[in-house]
Parts: sequence; structure tokens; C-alpha cells
Amino acid sequence: MRPTGVGESPVRVACIQFEPRVGEKEENLRRVLKLAQEAADKGAELILLPELSNTGYVFESRREAYELSEEVPHGETVEEWAELTKSRGIYLIGGVAERDGSALYNTSVLLGPTGYLGKYRKLHLWDREKLFFEPGDLGLPVFQTTLGRLAMGICYDLWFPETIRIYSLKGADIVLMPTNWVCIRDKVEEGRLVEALCVAQAHMNGVFIAAADRVGVERGQSFLGRSVVVSPRGRILAGPASYEGEETIYADLNLTDSRLKKMRTSLNHIIHDRRIDVYSPLLGYEGPHSAGKEPFQS
Amino acid sequence: MRPTGVGESPVRVACIQFEPRVGEKEENLRRVLKLAQEAADKGAELILLPELSNTGYVFESRREAYELSEEVPHGETVEEWAELTKSRGIYLIGGVAERDGSALYNTSVLLGPTGYLGKYRKLHLWDREKLFFEPGDLGLPVFQTTLGRLAMGICYDLWFPETIRIYSLKGADIVLMPTNWVCIRDKVEEGRLVEALCVAQAHMNGVFIAAADRVGVERGQSFLGRSVVVSPRGRILAGPASYEGEETIYADLNLTDSRLKKMRTSLNHIIHDRRIDVYSPLLGYEGPHSAGKEPFQS
Repeated sequence: MRPTGVGESPVRVACIQFEPRVGEKEENLRRVLKLAQEAADKGAELILLPELSNTGYVFESRREAYELSEEVPHGETVEEWAELTKSRGIYLIGGVAERDGSALYNTSVLLGPTGYLGKYRKLHLWDREKLFFEPGDLGLPVFQTTLGRLAMGICYDLWFPETIRIYSLKGADIVLMPTNWVCIRDKVEEGRLVEALCVAQAHMNGVFIAAADRVGVERGQSFLGRSVVVSPRGRILAGPASYEGEETIYADLNLTDSRLKKMRTSLNHIIHDRRIDVYSPLLGYEGPHSAGKEPFQS
Repeated sequence: MRPTGVGESPVRVACIQFEPRVGEKEENLRRVLKLAQEAADKGAELILLPELSNTGYVFESRREAYELSEEVPHGETVEEWAELTKSRGIYLIGGVAERDGSALYNTSVLLGPTGYLGKYRKLHLWDREKLFFEPGDLGLPVFQTTLGRLAMGICYDLWFPETIRIYSLKGADIVLMPTNWVCIRDKVEEGRLVEALCVAQAHMNGVFIAAADRVGVERGQSFLGRSVVVSPRGRILAGPASYEGEETIYADLNLTDSRLKKMRTSLNHIIHDRRIDVYSPLLGYEGPHSAGKEPFQS
């Protein structure tokens, strides 16, 4: 039984699913500002954009990625986003290509009514991202805001159970995930997989998960769409959005529902029931079977 | 690209979904033997039964649970099962109520062509099981067999990402899960959740997962059915079975597919890409937000 009613901490979340164009930073920025204004007009206080929403995704070279990158928070994109969130009194999370000296990061930025609040650098780089970006070096930060405790992950981070588990242990209410889910062969099968990942990770960890994906085909690479918002019980609250269309999905969340890790009318508690005594020696295990030494791993 | 073809290590797995009757041990044992014979007749070499398949689930008291329990491997159920697996040259995994001195465990037993091979004691006790059983004290063992590397989990263990992660790191090819998934309110919604858990856990960890559930209503508690077999890619290979019917589902698995953790034609490796450097200090975290001290946790 929920001790207090729905509506304690109501927040309208919007996931903006759209199609950035690779290399067209000005146009991407303009489009995001327009779509975010529209979402704010509809009452959204927490707006989520896809991964690398200002640059596009399929870089031809590290040089191209570098030229499209900018500093955070002192780059054009984040400064424009900050103007928006300050003028509208909202929060916005979106992906950018971040430059730090000569290093590049696949970064998600958090902005609020006071402007820039923080950033997250993608820990798990997908495929050719490994050629362009550095692995994230800022850990898994949880940001205390007036809405609640916000955390960020990017795309492939969702494939790692540790990501959401650690955020849950650190008290995150919602994990906001800018993504560029690629479609490899079968959009229906792969759409079903990412939905299962969002549902299972939210449910196992008792946190909200919101994912904003991009759509379209870029230099031969198509993307999945299927942006989604899931409750701490694993219930789908918005989406999955379409596979190919630009659309914004909305969900009204009581963010503090994430703090009830106890299953109602039972002796279960999904965090207290963990067996850390058993896990501790094993979770960092790097034995023969985990180290790529199998005959089938070539 | 798979370096070698399908059929390297083909195994026919059968999940027997049936309805044990609480307290009717002889009848439950007789039914299991009949259903397992039928599965073996259809070529199954690896047969999975539900949790507590010899006793039923909803005990009225610890005394009742104790009276129904038996020693492992020197109890009637396991001895009868061993006769079956020896005579048919097959493997069988099933749940029993295990007695060890005055302690009770919710246990899964592994038998093979040579008889008893080992056991697993449920680590994560669900709800009122905490009143009757001791938490498992045998860790997360992986058994090397002639079929491949087999591991076991029981029901609520699936809700913990650590369970399947650790089995994957220890080299398990398949995690066999006897379950008694209870239905709390909405069988369709809860069926969708357990399916998402099986799919996501298999996919994130690159292991096969097979779950055999029970059906029926016992002392007012109904069960979900929906037994399922999932591939290391997260593809459903058999099931989900019905919500209410007794049925056996079959899947022909190439068990060594689990050893290809690398995604084909990419630079991804779902185990090597882990960021243990980031996780290590955090996975055992027991800070204020993970310790049940939230205002909403009562």
C-alpha cells in the first residue's frame, strides 16, 4: 500500500523523438529549441532529447566528430539550451559531442531553471564510438534537483545491469537516457528487446526510466525509435513511440514512487533482499570464462 | 558472425509446467515421473521442473513445510529422480523442500546420467518463504556437465541482476530456473514483466535462460504459468506457455552459443565492455538511499 497518494511529486516528462542531421548543428539546435518549446507549452517540466542530438551520430572520422564537438558548458548548444530552461523554468537533458582539450566524450547534459547543472559522460561506448570518444570518466552521478534525484545514462549503458543498479543504490528517482538505438536487422525484434531492457531494469531496481531515441537513416544506419517511459514497477507509462516517426511522448510521473522499494503487502524489499555477502567476491570476477578466452570468441 | 555452425552442442530442453498439489508428495512425484518420461520420449535431454515441485508452495506453517521436506540427496524424491535420469541417460533439474538438520531450504537439485550431481539453495527468499526457509548458503555454483555448464536459480532470484550477471561471469551456458511465479493482481501485466525479465537478463548477460513455472490455484494463491526459454540474444525460443494449462515446452539449443559474448561485426563485447573500475566501489553501496530510510518506505 502506498503510504501517501499519487500526486506528491507530479512531474510531466517529455521525450522528444526526432531526427538530427549529421553535421547540421545549427539546424539541429533550432529544431530542438522549437520541439522543446512545444513540449513546455504542453506542461512538460522535464524534457529529454536523444543522444548526440546536436551533431548526429554516424561520424566518418574522428576529425569530423572533433569539428562538431564543443565544450560543456561553454559551448553554443549548451548555452542556447540554458537560455531556454531559464526562460521557461524547466529541466532539459540532451546528448552532445563534448570536447575537453583534445579529448572527446559522448556526453549528456543536465540544465534547469538556473541554467547548467551538470553532465554525464557515457561509460559504455558502442562499437565505433570507441574510435572517436574517450570512455566516460565522471562515474555515475545523481543530481539533486527541485524535481527529485535525476540520473543520466546513454544508450548502450542500458545493456549493463550495473548502471541502473548503482543509480538505484545511490537513490536516483529517474534515469534519463538519451539514446541512438541502432537497428541492425529486424526493427520489431530489436524494438522488443529494448523495451524489455527498459521494463526489466526499471522493475528490478525500482526506478523510473525514460528513453528518448532518434529516428531516421544516417549514412546507411537506421535507428529504432520506440522512445518509452517506464515506472518503478515496470509499467509502460508512455510509448513505445513509433519506429520511424518524429513525435514527443508525455508521462505524468510521481517521481517519489521510486522510493518505495518494498513490494506492497509482502515481506519483500528489492534492495534489502540483495545478497551482497554472496555477490561481493564475484561481481568483479575476471576469470577464464569472462575474459574472452572461449574457443568461440574470436 | 558465428565462427562455427549451429548444432555444435545441440540439446533439447523441456520445461514441464504442471500443477503440484500442496502436501500430496507421492502424487506429485508420480506425476513428475510420468511427465518427465514423456519429455524424454520426445528427445529431451535436459528437463526442468518448477520450484518446490514435490511439495506444493503455500505452506500453512513452518511445521507443515518441515514435515514435507526431505534430505538432499538422501530423500525419496531425489532418489526416485536419480533412478529416472540414470535409466534414461538424461539430466533433470527440479525444486524440492530440503531439510538439513532442523534447517529448511528452498532447493533446486541437479541430476544426470550418473545420478545426483549437486544442488542450489535459493538465495532470495520471496515474502513468507522468509518465515519457513533459511537463505541459501551455497553461493552461485556452476556445474560442468557433459552437456555444458549448467547453473540454477529459483524464481525471485531472477529479480536480482547480480544473480545472472555472476553466473555469466562464471561461465554458465544456461541458467535453469524452477519457479513458482505468483500472480498478484493482473496475469497479463505480470506475465509481461516476467517475460521482460527473462529476455533482458539473458540478453544483457549472453546466457540461455529457461524457466519452468507451475500453474493452478493453491490455498487462494494463483500462479502465472508462462514458462519460457530465451536465447543469449534475448530471443524467445519456446513459450511463453499458457497462463493456466499444464504443458511441456521444448527448445533445441546450441548451448555453446552462450560463449559468444561479442556482438557480431562490431567492436562490442558485453563482458569486456563492463566498467568495473566504476562499479567496484558502488555495487555493495549501502548508503542512506539504499537502506530503507526513505520517508516512503514504511
